[in-house]
Amino acid sequence: MSPADLGAAYDGRQVLVTGGAGFIGSNLARRLADLGARVTVVDSLLPNYGGNLFNLDGYENRLRINIADVRGHGMEFLVRNQHVIFNLAGQVSHIDSMSDPHTDLEINCHAQLSLLEACRRGNPGTKIVFASTRQIYGVPQYVPIDEVHPVRPTDVNGINKMAGEWYHILYNNVHGIRACSLRLTNTYGPRMLVKHSRQTALGWFVRQALDGDTIQIWGDGNQLRDYTYVDDVVDAFLAAGVTDAANGHCINLGGLRPVSHVELMSTLTDIAGTGSWKLVPFPPQFKKIDVGDTYCTHALANRLLGWQPKTELAAGLASTVSFYRSWREHYWN
Amino acid sequence: MSPADLGAAYDGRQVLVTGGAGFIGSNLARRLADLGARVTVVDSLLPNYGGNLFNLDGYENRLRINIADVRGHGMEFLVRNQHVIFNLAGQVSHIDSMSDPHTDLEINCHAQLSLLEACRRGNPGTKIVFASTRQIYGVPQYVPIDEVHPVRPTDVNGINKMAGEWYHILYNNVHGIRACSLRLTNTYGPRMLVKHSRQTALGWFVRQALDGDTIQIWGDGNQLRDYTYVDDVVDAFLAAGVTDAANGHCINLGGLRPVSHVELMSTLTDIAGTGSWKLVPFPPQFKKIDVGDTYCTHALANRLLGWQPKTELAAGLASTVSFYRSWREHYWN
Repeated sequence: MSPADLGAAYDGRQVLVTGGAGFIGSNLARRLADLGARVTVVDSLLPNYGGNLFNLDGYENRLRINIADVRGHGMEFLVRNQHVIFNLAGQVSHIDSMSDPHTDLEINCHAQLSLLEACRRGNPGTKIVFASTRQIYGVPQYVPIDEVHPVRPTDVNGINKMAGEWYHILYNNVHGIRACSLRLTNTYGPRMLVKHSRQTALGWFVRQALDGDTIQIWGDGNQLRDYTYVDDVVDAFLAAGVTDAANGHCINLGGLRPVSHVELMSTLTDIAGTGSWKLVPFPPQFKKIDVGDTYCTHALANRLLGWQPKTELAAGLASTVSFYRSWREHYWN
Repeated sequence: MSPADLGAAYDGRQVLVTGGAGFIGSNLARRLADLGARVTVVDSLLPNYGGNLFNLDGYENRLRINIADVRGHGMEFLVRNQHVIFNLAGQVSHIDSMSDPHTDLEINCHAQLSLLEACRRGNPGTKIVFASTRQIYGVPQYVPIDEVHPVRPTDVNGINKMAGEWYHILYNNVHGIRACSLRLTNTYGPRMLVKHSRQTALGWFVRQALDGDTIQIWGDGNQLRDYTYVDDVVDAFLAAGVTDAANGHCINLGGLRPVSHVELMSTLTDIAGTGSWKLVPFPPQFKKIDVGDTYCTHALANRLLGWQPKTELAAGLASTVSFYRSWREHYWN
């Protein structure tokens, strides 16, 4: 959708962003505020998760920041009168999901059911866009992965995200609460969590490059992934929020093209001008939840939402590196 | 497997049956005791669920009955030293799952993760056989449904059972806790719950026939289902418990052949000699979670477990009717 169309669609609309102080949520919330929406951000700001109030720096008076855990009560009130709910609150670390599966379940299943039940009772006319993940496909049977590819999650996080996604589709189909799910691939850009390595690999690599460290690539470096720049992902969420043709659908936000780990690291360290990389053997404890080469199409997103990724890897990484060079002290610790 | 093979496999073995006072669990626990296994039954005996101490009548001194809710603590202790765990505790009403989705989640997901975590910490060498359901396939894309058919659950129960099943497969694949999942179709026979209509349709029909009531068939009566007699299902669980070729697999326990609702009701009321049936329009509140014709193959079960259903519908219904005629007072209220 064009900026003018999006402005017309969101200007003055009441919008909720769960996980709105996190990486993608904050970029989305900022853009929504720019479009004139009346934005409420909900975030628990739990330590070790992606929420960071600095992500909303400069927007403190342009949106409402409500600190709350989606697992608790309070969501019943917060969902009321929202025209669109962007539901991005989640536990996203697959490593954490294997060591603490119950917390993953509470956030990715229990809280999702609570939010949907709250909408069913208090705001059945709302529209919900759920942030899902390509992880639920598991080990690819073919690439690029499209939406009819079987789902075969390989970790607790994938299973729970799959269930959370299905709740949304079910409430769309059975209860008439308009909902769709966007299956994110590796999203990167300003405001991603770089405090530790358990959430996104790429965030940690950016940090290592800026710290002048040697980045270790597991395996032979030929593994293929797709990467989507956060501004492009925000475009997809905005389009999904006002496109009823997407209701009931799960839609991949596949990247522009597959990129090898070696290309990624070369590009990153070239752009940063600092850091280096080397190949090391795959650590056995992570090998068992690795999925090999994996990347997705964006054909359905293009058809239903008119969306396609626009940002080339080098341009996206340049913005990302520049952002963290400027605001390092807000993200390193 | 032959009775002699099963006797050799289970004689003296320590075995846990969760949901063991329920319909299938109790039939399984009785047979295990007959085979010489040292059986512990865990059941919460929650009102409105399938647990009924009379299901274990005559076996009180031949197995250990432990009243406990799989959602609570205590499972850590109970899973220890069990050679095989038959994990049948579950919330099985799809209707209840839509009105109270969180309870369904606690039983079908949270408790399953707890049991698996307890095994991972305290009994990683055990074998687990999980009771799943053909419901997770949703509206069939083709019949008979095999195990590569896409899963498209149409209610909260189906989503949560799917997640619970995936946890078992995941713990098999990642943590090496041997596990497989049996996807049950419509199972019937002695000891099924007939107190109310929310758990199995067929149990309720049997009760209505024995009460001389008129059974209402929703729709045109041509809907096809498959029905598997409980003794056959017990055979499959016993085989799965000692067959490592099944580990990591989800296996349909499809019936002998598809049966129309009209054939089912005619056969049932003929055998009972009481009750009648008539066609009525589909109630709209249930139509929205109906899945149409649906029945499964048992080809994979035959290949991996050497199993196939043996009991013809008329014979199974005759045993069922006879059982409830004898023991009506223990099941009607």
